Amino acid sequence: MTQDNLSAVLYGIDDLRLEQRPIPVPKDDEVLIKMEAIGICGSDVHYLKKGRICDFIVDKPMILGHESSGMVVGVGKNVKHLKEGDRVAIEPGVPCGQCNFCKGGRYNLCPEIFFCATPPDDGNLSRYYCHSASYCYKLPDNMSYEEGALMEPLSVGVHACRRGNVGVGSVVLVLGAGPIGLVTLLSAKAFGASKVLITDILDERLQVAKSLGADHTLKIEKHMTEQDIIKKITELLGEDPTVSLDCSGAEVSVRVALQVTKTGGVAVLVGMGKSEITIPLSGALFREIDIRGCFRYHNTYPTAIELVSSGKINVKPLVTHKFKIEDTQKAFDTAVSGEGNPIKIVIYPNRSNV
Amino acid sequence: MTQDNLSAVLYGIDDLRLEQRPIPVPKDDEVLIKMEAIGICGSDVHYLKKGRICDFIVDKPMILGHESSGMVVGVGKNVKHLKEGDRVAIEPGVPCGQCNFCKGGRYNLCPEIFFCATPPDDGNLSRYYCHSASYCYKLPDNMSYEEGALMEPLSVGVHACRRGNVGVGSVVLVLGAGPIGLVTLLSAKAFGASKVLITDILDERLQVAKSLGADHTLKIEKHMTEQDIIKKITELLGEDPTVSLDCSGAEVSVRVALQVTKTGGVAVLVGMGKSEITIPLSGALFREIDIRGCFRYHNTYPTAIELVSSGKINVKPLVTHKFKIEDTQKAFDTAVSGEGNPIKIVIYPNRSNV
Amino acid sequence: MTQDNLSAVLYGIDDLRLEQRPIPVPKDDEVLIKMEAIGICGSDVHYLKKGRICDFIVDKPMILGHESSGMVVGVGKNVKHLKEGDRVAIEPGVPCGQCNFCKGGRYNLCPEIFFCATPPDDGNLSRYYCHSASYCYKLPDNMSYEEGALMEPLSVGVHACRRGNVGVGSVVLVLGAGPIGLVTLLSAKAFGASKVLITDILDERLQVAKSLGADHTLKIEKHMTEQDIIKKITELLGEDPTVSLDCSGAEVSVRVALQVTKTGGVAVLVGMGKSEITIPLSGALFREIDIRGCFRYHNTYPTAIELVSSGKINVKPLVTHKFKIEDTQKAFDTAVSGEGNPIKIVIYPNRSNV
Amino acid sequence: MTQDNLSAVLYGIDDLRLEQRPIPVPKDDEVLIKMEAIGICGSDVHYLKKGRICDFIVDKPMILGHESSGMVVGVGKNVKHLKEGDRVAIEPGVPCGQCNFCKGGRYNLCPEIFFCATPPDDGNLSRYYCHSASYCYKLPDNMSYEEGALMEPLSVGVHACRRGNVGVGSVVLVLGAGPIGLVTLLSAKAFGASKVLITDILDERLQVAKSLGADHTLKIEKHMTEQDIIKKITELLGEDPTVSLDCSGAEVSVRVALQVTKTGGVAVLVGMGKSEITIPLSGALFREIDIRGCFRYHNTYPTAIELVSSGKINVKPLVTHKFKIEDTQKAFDTAVSGEGNPIKIVIYPNRSNV
Repeated sequence: MTQDNLSAVLYGIDDLRLEQRPIPVPKDDEVLIKMEAIGICGSDVHYLKKGRICDFIVDKPMILGHESSGMVVGVGKNVKHLKEGDRVAIEPGVPCGQCNFCKGGRYNLCPEIFFCATPPDDGNLSRYYCHSASYCYKLPDNMSYEEGALMEPLSVGVHACRRGNVGVGSVVLVLGAGPIGLVTLLSAKAFGASKVLITDILDERLQVAKSLGADHTLKIEKHMTEQDIIKKITELLGEDPTVSLDCSGAEVSVRVALQVTKTGGVAVLVGMGKSEITIPLSGALFREIDIRGCFRYHNTYPTAIELVSSGKINVKPLVTHKFKIEDTQKAFDTAVSGEGNPIKIVIYPNRSNV
Repeated sequence: MTQDNLSAVLYGIDDLRLEQRPIPVPKDDEVLIKMEAIGICGSDVHYLKKGRICDFIVDKPMILGHESSGMVVGVGKNVKHLKEGDRVAIEPGVPCGQCNFCKGGRYNLCPEIFFCATPPDDGNLSRYYCHSASYCYKLPDNMSYEEGALMEPLSVGVHACRRGNVGVGSVVLVLGAGPIGLVTLLSAKAFGASKVLITDILDERLQVAKSLGADHTLKIEKHMTEQDIIKKITELLGEDPTVSLDCSGAEVSVRVALQVTKTGGVAVLVGMGKSEITIPLSGALFREIDIRGCFRYHNTYPTAIELVSSGKINVKPLVTHKFKIEDTQKAFDTAVSGEGNPIKIVIYPNRSNV
Repeated sequence: MTQDNLSAVLYGIDDLRLEQRPIPVPKDDEVLIKMEAIGICGSDVHYLKKGRICDFIVDKPMILGHESSGMVVGVGKNVKHLKEGDRVAIEPGVPCGQCNFCKGGRYNLCPEIFFCATPPDDGNLSRYYCHSASYCYKLPDNMSYEEGALMEPLSVGVHACRRGNVGVGSVVLVLGAGPIGLVTLLSAKAFGASKVLITDILDERLQVAKSLGADHTLKIEKHMTEQDIIKKITELLGEDPTVSLDCSGAEVSVRVALQVTKTGGVAVLVGMGKSEITIPLSGALFREIDIRGCFRYHNTYPTAIELVSSGKINVKPLVTHKFKIEDTQKAFDTAVSGEGNPIKIVIYPNRSNV
Repeated sequence: MTQDNLSAVLYGIDDLRLEQRPIPVPKDDEVLIKMEAIGICGSDVHYLKKGRICDFIVDKPMILGHESSGMVVGVGKNVKHLKEGDRVAIEPGVPCGQCNFCKGGRYNLCPEIFFCATPPDDGNLSRYYCHSASYCYKLPDNMSYEEGALMEPLSVGVHACRRGNVGVGSVVLVLGAGPIGLVTLLSAKAFGASKVLITDILDERLQVAKSLGADHTLKIEKHMTEQDIIKKITELLGEDPTVSLDCSGAEVSVRVALQVTKTGGVAVLVGMGKSEITIPLSGALFREIDIRGCFRYHNTYPTAIELVSSGKINVKPLVTHKFKIEDTQKAFDTAVSGEGNPIKIVIYPNRSNV
């Protein structure tokens, strides 16, 4: 086998280096994966530009990347459900399996979870990578590696909709049409929402959202007040949203969500905002609007794969830019500059031309 | 029958008058009740001193009182489950029964609900009063009228615990040991909580809480910082609370609840705070702490009655002061001054000496 | 206004008479409806041929019909949300609104519920009919009266899917492709089921099911054993169904459902079978398969209307036969004989030619 | 360390042998336990007398015992939460941690679960035994080894009550007052049930149930018909039970549960009955009574320990007989004969006199 395991390692702020790492050997319950497609996430960019997210600090070199798929090329001796040649989507979090969160089914809250490209855990923007086989999901033949990699962001949308009890009859507001807003929109439609209105400050994003199935879009203009936005949302929907999902993290979006959500409804805050926020909380609680956050996801991969494989959700339009691993810096530059309106940028570690 | 229907009517701020009102005639689905015990609620006092609560404004004379019980002395022709002589607890809210909130079981959210002593609806601090028979609940023989009246505040505690999924294994924090904090404590214990810690700024209240079954009490001192309080709570409980219920409405309490609640837990905000609040929201949501408000209650009376009748909850110690209706002003003065550490003040409209 | 209120009255077994009844006057909370479309239900036919269903016995003349829609032509004085000229779907059950079932949101279980064409309550296979306005739902402009009438059977499907927690990721088995099986199929697809397999003994029904979106169909042949059927289902689905919904009431179907449902799944029994049944119960319970029945439905009409109005569900192909009210006997004869493979037969009480 | 690891090995029907086994060495994630108390379960007796339960067949020698506690005397290198000298209750099932049941929190349904004394897995009626540390729970100082061993049967009661949504306001019927009926009674009371009625055919058992807190007991007499029993239950409770839990497995009990449970309630079938059963199913489903089985338990140990440690549940009266391991045959003889009305028989593998 080749010894080439070029990897994208973050050494510190704006210090991303491509360097060789040894090809790892799978442990008994792991598989070795030839990496085929890796999406760049906002968090990857955030680590590159700021060196940290909240208390997660890059204080030693860390391989980036956690939205990924690849082909199994090595199999630990205890692994039963995968074999060499299988194409897999990789769930980047591997929980301890032993704590009460894990035993209770909410393994995303496991305090001991390993998570790709969250310091100090290495990600998998490499040519080769080993992962717990239990968190590798075989892709159906009709799904591509790009789609496999997108199961990660789609999982965020699926988890957000589950947290919001989105279903048949839900009237949904999605605030923010970035990648997370878009996967949340796709999930909400697949979960049976009656209608979905999505907002953003950029026209291009709203056009994408429209093409992905948004029933209504609302461009947030600088001059609009909170009350303007609320009024517009209710006008466009013809009623108050029963579920609002903020995917922007902006204070104004959270404030709008709390005020516009229908009495007895749910406001899910997916986006991470600033640590302190001033909000009209009691008015929302008085109307028994439940406020729920999201931390990553759990038990979403089989569902996400089914939604794409069955054609219920089409994630392909999300991929706007493609790079080989040698051009990782260029890929990140594009993500930072926003040139060409990138939604999802995908890197192919084992392709020579993309 | 007597024509005496002395009633306590609020004309405006600090303008409470006792005056005669006609004894009403029950409609087909109503009963006429000879009122026997009525508790004074913080909201009654608030209307007296401020003339409003949020958007509910006393702009015409309104009879006060909504925590009440009495004896049925007249029965509408469609009423089947009650007869003259029955002793009843009166649920003060009568929803429309027709909207989607009502049809769906969350009738507390009914926008058309009639609610005693919420403007413009008259309360029942009167000698006689008519009410929808469906919202009058027969008291078991082993329950007194005082206990019947206390089913109203106890309902708030029951609803709060339901909203917080309090049950066997819950580790509960109650912030604030006023009347609502105390009924929430009583409910949490009855719902099977492993342990309950309750906080307050007054020693006397914490002593009452202790006597009502609090496992731990914490006196909040002026000099304590948020982090001091959080540390103390975790120390006393030996772990983080899985459910926090704020019954104070204080900003610092809400802030403590969001930070001290265990990852994956619930923070129920029962107390009404100020309209805008600054809180460390994203830290709580990141840990998937669900934030839920309470608006009154629904489907609680049969449960509350059962809890008291069976001896699981003892509400009697809550009654600290008793007045006849002629002394209503004195009763309110006591509530306002706090003299004698009142918890629950009860007025007896049809007793000459109490 | 006309005095013609021709009505289809069942006097006893096989004794159906068309006769004039007075046009009723709406009570304060009712509307008078000019009836436009009424579907014939299996229960109508059952009453005609047997005179009873379980303990519901036709022991005095009863107007048939409960799947219906019409136009509001009279409005009681307390009705606010409807006006003359509104086109409405009529929910045939009007619960008491006062018992604990009603207060708790499961009003289908109300013991005092009025239900059209369940003895002794008259149905609405008439030219004019009065109904509680709260249980009349305004039809969107893009929905026809036939579709309005079909909200009743569709409600059965919606309720069944809710009882079974059908949603994204569900693998669904529907046993029986009669009208109830078909609306359950439609609902399951709309609720996001991954795939739906439907069974029947008749090819024609399975063809309809296929055209309505069934992913798989299985014809049950006389010679097939239980184990044959189970094996076939698992083969076709490629896995065990997570939710099985029996819409046949046949003992063999119930037995199959209990055995083929995936461990931890749900078996919903929609169809009414015989009163005593012999089943392999402990094997199913040992695998924690929950068994749930359905009694009519609650809180389904707004959802059902939204599903059809938004185009998520197309119920039009269910209507196979149309009659005017004068031909009611002929309509029932067709239902009984099965000639022309009727799925849903609709009667138009106020049309002279259909 | 001693080399004595006397173990109770079942070779076949009525062929129980005490023999030495090597003291095992804990794997990295295991602990070695000096066994201190082991309860005899009905399943142990069943394997001894019949050689099988359903498809679980003793076809090679198997150590019995799975209700157990002991002291940690060896610790694998990856174990963090336990150390030598810790006293632990042992959850006998160790699931794979990797399948969708495990990831979703219902690990009792894991098809790969290891379970003590379920063929082919050895139990722990031995002097020394190794177990996954994650499924060993540290006992509080105020709990004895007997109580630790009883966490296993108590878990069955806790799981049954969770499956039945038993809580404040529940009116509970427990059918059968054997060990499982009694732990279900104890759990139902701790979960806040309003009242619990328990039935049995033996007076002595009902007396124990009474002393453990049953509000009502009903002795089932030979001459009583199903309808007699149903009538008696409703009379004693003064209403229909909202939750019925069958802990007998008897056909008549299941039949009673389905008929007597209140409309909209739950019937939990905890006891394993015969494979085919004839029941009045449609009548129960028509009233939307949910039927749920139980398979062992999951996520119960921390709760069960808390319930006993806090004094909410007292399991001590359940222990009626005590033996040393050398007298294992005598212990089983007692279980089989029923002499002395045994409820729970406990064996102490490391005590010379008990």
